[in-house]
Amino acid sequence: MDTILKNHSKCRIVVDAMGGDFAPLNTILGSIQAYQESGEFDLNLVGRTDEIKKIISSQNLTFDESKIIHADEVIQMGEKPTKALKQKPNSSIVVGTKFVKDGFADAFISAGDTGSVMAASTLIIGRIPGVGRPTISTAMPNESGVCNLFDVGASVDSKPKHLLEYAIMGSIYTEEMDGIKNPTVGLLNVGEEEGKGNEVTIEAAELIKKTKLNFIGNVEGFDILKGSANVIICDGFVGNILIKFGEGVLDLLKYKFKEYASKSFTNKLKVGLIRSTMREALKDFDYQTHGGAVLLGVNKISIIGHGSSSPIAIKNMVLRANEIHKKNIIEKISNAINQYSNIN
Amino acid sequence: MDTILKNHSKCRIVVDAMGGDFAPLNTILGSIQAYQESGEFDLNLVGRTDEIKKIISSQNLTFDESKIIHADEVIQMGEKPTKALKQKPNSSIVVGTKFVKDGFADAFISAGDTGSVMAASTLIIGRIPGVGRPTISTAMPNESGVCNLFDVGASVDSKPKHLLEYAIMGSIYTEEMDGIKNPTVGLLNVGEEEGKGNEVTIEAAELIKKTKLNFIGNVEGFDILKGSANVIICDGFVGNILIKFGEGVLDLLKYKFKEYASKSFTNKLKVGLIRSTMREALKDFDYQTHGGAVLLGVNKISIIGHGSSSPIAIKNMVLRANEIHKKNIIEKISNAINQYSNIN
Repeated sequence: MDTILKNHSKCRIVVDAMGGDFAPLNTILGSIQAYQESGEFDLNLVGRTDEIKKIISSQNLTFDESKIIHADEVIQMGEKPTKALKQKPNSSIVVGTKFVKDGFADAFISAGDTGSVMAASTLIIGRIPGVGRPTISTAMPNESGVCNLFDVGASVDSKPKHLLEYAIMGSIYTEEMDGIKNPTVGLLNVGEEEGKGNEVTIEAAELIKKTKLNFIGNVEGFDILKGSANVIICDGFVGNILIKFGEGVLDLLKYKFKEYASKSFTNKLKVGLIRSTMREALKDFDYQTHGGAVLLGVNKISIIGHGSSSPIAIKNMVLRANEIHKKNIIEKISNAINQYSNIN
Repeated sequence: MDTILKNHSKCRIVVDAMGGDFAPLNTILGSIQAYQESGEFDLNLVGRTDEIKKIISSQNLTFDESKIIHADEVIQMGEKPTKALKQKPNSSIVVGTKFVKDGFADAFISAGDTGSVMAASTLIIGRIPGVGRPTISTAMPNESGVCNLFDVGASVDSKPKHLLEYAIMGSIYTEEMDGIKNPTVGLLNVGEEEGKGNEVTIEAAELIKKTKLNFIGNVEGFDILKGSANVIICDGFVGNILIKFGEGVLDLLKYKFKEYASKSFTNKLKVGLIRSTMREALKDFDYQTHGGAVLLGVNKISIIGHGSSSPIAIKNMVLRANEIHKKNIIEKISNAINQYSNIN
């Protein structure tokens, strides 16, 4: 089965050269580096041709300029997504996603405005048939193993059916990308007992139970970092507030340590000694440094990077797109969604 | 105005002697200590008379035994609340809340099963007219000042009107108990911009804006620990998952430090040096040690303690009940709910 599904065609990747706070420098540096190191995929850059050429030249990079897709406009951070897509049809995000939609590429990567990239991916590239809502995850650090939290902000007001979709898509993604056979799936809730929760989760649990997923039932807030499940499902409203709260916990801890250090020279020494441990313990929490979130449920590959993406972050996103393509994850998700389409 | 509202009658407090993992010892020790130190209020103990008398005698305590209200049954942790209330009409929780309901006392305090205490308070004592849902808060630690998060688990599937109620009740409670004049109120959401959020929060923001509360609009996950608002409002589903996730962050940090310490003797020394700082930085996070959560929206005072409450925690709960009574908070909440009853 796996061999049949294996994708033998080269992945064709489009990178939004204009997306992100340090674009087009970081986007060009990162994607060309990935391209040269791997050689497994085709690369297109979309954006203002003159600006892209200038960077290629000033950085002494080698890149076939016929692979540049011209797009004159740039959607800025914070623009209202649906309005921006309409008002800027020649923006790199719209032109890039259209290029994918029209079958010229398999993957779109952008560190531009998250809302606009999500909207363009969903509306222009389109959803996998049967998927009501796309979802993005963040890999949560834990004591051992892997835990991917879906959804962390792509969709709010998720219906039970959408949570079922996140469970199906998250399970496949985690199995393929993290190499965990039959990953455990938990439903984030206010209590472990069956029947606990709000209306949506109570109904969602009933739906997920009908699948062949390795569903372990409800999990609670503390389970996210315990690694009690490999895949944890929640509405994007909850997931988004959670990951931002997690950042807040770390900021407060850093503040408390700084405050303590400022009280005396001895304290300062103590805190200095432990700084590297702190940094190591905390680094896993910064979900945005992992090099982008994959928008699952879209009919092609779509990866959204953090605005401040470094060249390495961009490079990792490009390599990840290639891996998703090789593992045929979009097709596998599509098949699974189809397999479970009768559940409701 | 304030002088008119000041409550001059002595507060009459009923403590559930049988509630909690270390009952009746801790509940009796804590409440009698509060009673003897303060002398400002009346105290009743509800539970099995013989067991209570035995503790009073074995601990050489002085307490007027006519103040013991006999209740033969005990609701255990984890029993289904509505079923337990029905099946155990002679339980300390049911007898105690009925005593309050019938006007013989002003406050009920229990470290028993949270669900059952909430259910008995809501169903037997009853809600303040106009309040649809009661709410409990937790005091969140932050860089400076006070932040109370409402709701952290009393009510899931809150409607916009309920979030408005939490804002009104939380604002009064924070002003009175934390001494913050006109506290800022934020609505927990996925983005700061107006119009962001799920259906419930978008509508709730419109309702809260119509009040005279010091509403600062949407706040995000990281704002909870930044102290961006004195009162932060959310549905109990989100609030409950958040505080448990917060505990999980600390557990993971402790784990990471322990793991680091186990690697070498030097590491162990380093971690040892910083342990007291860690403990200090983390202690604020344990919301359950603060000595109980006040269930706002109930027509009398109801305070719910953690199952593992120490005598000091019980004592603090009793003293807090007395303070709430003296400050006439239930009446002030009732007036405010009435004042804003036309908002919808």
